[in-house]
Amino acid sequence: MIARVVVLGLLAGSGWAQNVVHYTAKTANVKYLFATAEPVLRLKSGDILDTNTLDCFGNGLKKPGDTLSMAKGDNPLAGPFYVDEAEPGDTLAVKILDLQVDGEYGVGAFSPGFGSINSSHYTPMLGGELPERVWFYPIDHAANTATFKAMDTDFSVKIPMHPFFGCIGVAPANGEARSSIVPAEFGGNMDSPEASVGNTVYFPVNVKGGLLYLGDGHAAMGDGEAAGSAIEVPLKARVQVSVIKGRRIDWPQFENDDAIMTVGAYRPLEDATRIALTELVHWIHKDYGLSELDAYELLSKVGKIHLNEMVDPNYVVVASIEKKYLPAKKKP
Amino acid sequence: MIARVVVLGLLAGSGWAQNVVHYTAKTANVKYLFATAEPVLRLKSGDILDTNTLDCFGNGLKKPGDTLSMAKGDNPLAGPFYVDEAEPGDTLAVKILDLQVDGEYGVGAFSPGFGSINSSHYTPMLGGELPERVWFYPIDHAANTATFKAMDTDFSVKIPMHPFFGCIGVAPANGEARSSIVPAEFGGNMDSPEASVGNTVYFPVNVKGGLLYLGDGHAAMGDGEAAGSAIEVPLKARVQVSVIKGRRIDWPQFENDDAIMTVGAYRPLEDATRIALTELVHWIHKDYGLSELDAYELLSKVGKIHLNEMVDPNYVVVASIEKKYLPAKKKP
Amino acid sequence: MIARVVVLGLLAGSGWAQNVVHYTAKTANVKYLFATAEPVLRLKSGDILDTNTLDCFGNGLKKPGDTLSMAKGDNPLAGPFYVDEAEPGDTLAVKILDLQVDGEYGVGAFSPGFGSINSSHYTPMLGGELPERVWFYPIDHAANTATFKAMDTDFSVKIPMHPFFGCIGVAPANGEARSSIVPAEFGGNMDSPEASVGNTVYFPVNVKGGLLYLGDGHAAMGDGEAAGSAIEVPLKARVQVSVIKGRRIDWPQFENDDAIMTVGAYRPLEDATRIALTELVHWIHKDYGLSELDAYELLSKVGKIHLNEMVDPNYVVVASIEKKYLPAKKKP
Amino acid sequence: MIARVVVLGLLAGSGWAQNVVHYTAKTANVKYLFATAEPVLRLKSGDILDTNTLDCFGNGLKKPGDTLSMAKGDNPLAGPFYVDEAEPGDTLAVKILDLQVDGEYGVGAFSPGFGSINSSHYTPMLGGELPERVWFYPIDHAANTATFKAMDTDFSVKIPMHPFFGCIGVAPANGEARSSIVPAEFGGNMDSPEASVGNTVYFPVNVKGGLLYLGDGHAAMGDGEAAGSAIEVPLKARVQVSVIKGRRIDWPQFENDDAIMTVGAYRPLEDATRIALTELVHWIHKDYGLSELDAYELLSKVGKIHLNEMVDPNYVVVASIEKKYLPAKKKP
Repeated sequence: MIARVVVLGLLAGSGWAQNVVHYTAKTANVKYLFATAEPVLRLKSGDILDTNTLDCFGNGLKKPGDTLSMAKGDNPLAGPFYVDEAEPGDTLAVKILDLQVDGEYGVGAFSPGFGSINSSHYTPMLGGELPERVWFYPIDHAANTATFKAMDTDFSVKIPMHPFFGCIGVAPANGEARSSIVPAEFGGNMDSPEASVGNTVYFPVNVKGGLLYLGDGHAAMGDGEAAGSAIEVPLKARVQVSVIKGRRIDWPQFENDDAIMTVGAYRPLEDATRIALTELVHWIHKDYGLSELDAYELLSKVGKIHLNEMVDPNYVVVASIEKKYLPAKKKP
Repeated sequence: MIARVVVLGLLAGSGWAQNVVHYTAKTANVKYLFATAEPVLRLKSGDILDTNTLDCFGNGLKKPGDTLSMAKGDNPLAGPFYVDEAEPGDTLAVKILDLQVDGEYGVGAFSPGFGSINSSHYTPMLGGELPERVWFYPIDHAANTATFKAMDTDFSVKIPMHPFFGCIGVAPANGEARSSIVPAEFGGNMDSPEASVGNTVYFPVNVKGGLLYLGDGHAAMGDGEAAGSAIEVPLKARVQVSVIKGRRIDWPQFENDDAIMTVGAYRPLEDATRIALTELVHWIHKDYGLSELDAYELLSKVGKIHLNEMVDPNYVVVASIEKKYLPAKKKP
Repeated sequence: MIARVVVLGLLAGSGWAQNVVHYTAKTANVKYLFATAEPVLRLKSGDILDTNTLDCFGNGLKKPGDTLSMAKGDNPLAGPFYVDEAEPGDTLAVKILDLQVDGEYGVGAFSPGFGSINSSHYTPMLGGELPERVWFYPIDHAANTATFKAMDTDFSVKIPMHPFFGCIGVAPANGEARSSIVPAEFGGNMDSPEASVGNTVYFPVNVKGGLLYLGDGHAAMGDGEAAGSAIEVPLKARVQVSVIKGRRIDWPQFENDDAIMTVGAYRPLEDATRIALTELVHWIHKDYGLSELDAYELLSKVGKIHLNEMVDPNYVVVASIEKKYLPAKKKP
Repeated sequence: MIARVVVLGLLAGSGWAQNVVHYTAKTANVKYLFATAEPVLRLKSGDILDTNTLDCFGNGLKKPGDTLSMAKGDNPLAGPFYVDEAEPGDTLAVKILDLQVDGEYGVGAFSPGFGSINSSHYTPMLGGELPERVWFYPIDHAANTATFKAMDTDFSVKIPMHPFFGCIGVAPANGEARSSIVPAEFGGNMDSPEASVGNTVYFPVNVKGGLLYLGDGHAAMGDGEAAGSAIEVPLKARVQVSVIKGRRIDWPQFENDDAIMTVGAYRPLEDATRIALTELVHWIHKDYGLSELDAYELLSKVGKIHLNEMVDPNYVVVASIEKKYLPAKKKP
């Protein structure tokens, strides 16, 4: 059954009425797959969605002393949200309008068998494992910080918060269903700090309705998500969905006023980087009119490459270029 | 024969007299190997070296229309500079005090068989090769910009200059001699934008005197140096060398007032990243007193990973953390 | 609906009666996912299944001159076959009793964007693409050969046939559904020549009934499946399924009278190899009683590593050791 | 000084007189670099060299109980041997005529920080290290076996010997000098079982005289040399050198009566494999006249890929095809 709850309101700064749709994610209604599934809500292109997300542990770790055995699943997802106009071959744009960290603690964890520089499921090694560890990060909402408190010494330090969705994606192509820990062509567990306020993320639409999923809020994360977790938090979120008819993309993209960004989500890192770079060359060529060789050369001088994470089943790299370095966009 | 030319002078801002040693690199005296070789100059720990470097083409491409066949060697190096106190097991610190782009043009080039997303020497593919291309970047010293001019359209755009050494390194360990296109444990062709004014780079001393080499100036470069070249320029450079006795490091490091940074220079990118991250965990543990697991966790929240290049015989990644996130440094 | 057709018969060489179950795969009943789906047949542990498989093109390319546009899907699968006793945590054993190439032609194809040494979907490059090509291999059943006929010269040569399943696998864990071009923990498109007569392949049971799928017959294949295809053929197949209760494995394994073999199916090749090697060390340790270090040392002297393919979404490596180098198997 | 000792003799089976030159390697005259160095002997094209090699530990571990601290260097090399006619642009052919294991023990060792599935220098991980271990392999010359004796149980097993050079190579190009633990374009520490009796190995000649080095005898080795060592032995060796004027190759090759084989020696394994495969496609195209696409297709059906080792600074892969699958060789 597809519910639909709409609140009409005058959005601050928008100057005109838009649909604002509310949804509440809870343990009982989350998903653990990016897949075709019964939508929890139906949206129209242009609608604004107000929702929340549970943290990657299903909000199971609540206070210092709690352990990973108390986690309720990995990366529970809010959704799927069905967008009326979206059909295979279109692009779904999700503009991130607001993200608020929800709660008094963020959680960081080292989970044996997961991480960039220890024996892991897909890079197994013989030799001793590091032990499980959980760190709690007290959150100061007024100061917008989370505090790291060392486990083995009495050091602590405040970290500015930059909230983003660790998980944001749609139903995969070809009928695949992928675990919520996987990033790939459909987005998913990209762990991209680019999935934050002010940015729009584009996804290929693979099934009718697109089927958007959100989850795995991060209050802050280092490049590579080295030890396997960010400051994991529940989020309150506001996003606007819209459908770009007839624009076909192969991999997720980000855009804001200043830059265009492409995502490569695969292993090894070389291939993730090659995907992001070739996608960016193609985008510049197609929409901004530079030849492929000129675009390649220009990226070699001003392009950016951001290693989002090197711990998930696929690794994620974002390549980008600031628009100030590009010609005016071609008329469609 | 080891020449030694010293000029005593009061350095601006230093408040006390230091040796300033001058050296002029030219086609006749450059090297193409990081290796043990007869030094061109002898320095003392604390000396300031004023020198210049040729561009990666040996200054062979001078004006629009010139082609890669006019290049005089790859990455000619100024040096080696012998530092009196440096012995195996020490660390050589090179503080970069000043870098000035020398000349009216920078050069960018696509050379078939070299680049991150085309068939290359070590990642060979069947299928058509892209053609050779050379771009000239007019330099505006007053505005501190170089101008990209598209080859296939009439678009042009100004790029702010951030000059750095593409090549900076010492003689390798174990008697090895490595081409000036190679980055590895000894530094070398790291293509690290971190090798710029305000930063100090540390190298392991592998042979008596350390044997510092400099070259391959870049006026600006995108992450990954995607198409295989930066804005290639000759440089005028001022650096200060000093020897840290008894500090042994395995890979190059950078440091400035704000951050500590480690270098991984190998293939694949995963291994370069693992080297940089483990070196950074060890550094934080050793000098700042966090346990390895706390350091690992902290990097997972605030660490930075910078993909310098993915085109040279080894790939280079710099991992870093801002000092504001670290405890006070331990007394030695 | 689960059909069940059983023929009781005295199997040649077995000396006692076993169930032989027949199933016919055709275009109308194939699947394109390794996933939970309605079974086409129910088997009991110990049953023998007589079935057939379509070739990877859905038998769409029939004669010289036919092109890839005539393919009907990629890797259509016979199945799923439900095995009564199989429950999560068990191991499903599939013994391959007989494989016969079905038809007068095998097909080889180069498909742009797929292959080990050309620009591909996950290793994209700029530069010219190779063109599509299809080769037909006349089959001589009496001589057990398929004939390669060069496209650009008049050379031809006979290749001995060694038929095997390119696809053999079960429903994945965690509710995932994976395309029939993917190999991973559940087996799948492993393109393992080890999936041939005389060998038993073991899979982790992830869902009730296990859900076995078969397809993508190969008459012969080179290591790495370099250009992206084998000699693709329909097969007539006879396999015996059995359930090993309470034996839990993480990755597929092969076994025959002479050797034990482990599968690593991931990217990069290093990780696929690490998975296969660590799994083999653990197997030797657990079932044959050598310490892990002794097992590691022994593999370093007599282990085998077989690169099955380097073209699919994951790469597949099989590591093995001959039983003659192992102690007697421990009593369970 | 270049010594030259020639013995004229009628070689068994050759039917005509050839120069046989003797050389004795000992601790005092070995090298640890593939590099330009003063030759120890001058040969003529066609000469046969009788020599010996020390094991990879400099023959420093002699009996059970000895430890790695008693090793005298890594991979001491006999040579360099200068071949009169060899000039840059030529190919040096080394035919391996005889290899005899010298001594009563072979040695296997696990050295912390080295190996394919444990934390290593270039793939560093946090977590516990495996401990150093040394295994001694009693050799039975009559039976041509070496015996593995488990350390932690009383199991032992005989392993057939297949002696080969772990190290065989020439001086690198561009003035580089590389450690004797490195395999690359110049050959070197390839750890290729293909470097055994009956095979000819080809090297690019980079410097006048070629400068052949030999060492690191292996009595037997598993694919991948997983734990970092083979059954390490001193060898007595007989090889014949010859110069192929004007044939230019980029990477080492092997050949025997039955097959042609190409070497890729780099990281990651994907790139090593790509190098070997593209070199093989080019070789088949150039010398046997198939088009590149036909060659690529044929390799996809009958090519072999052998992972020699995944532990050295570069990984080594040998790709091959049996000559029976190729057209007649083109007349030069």
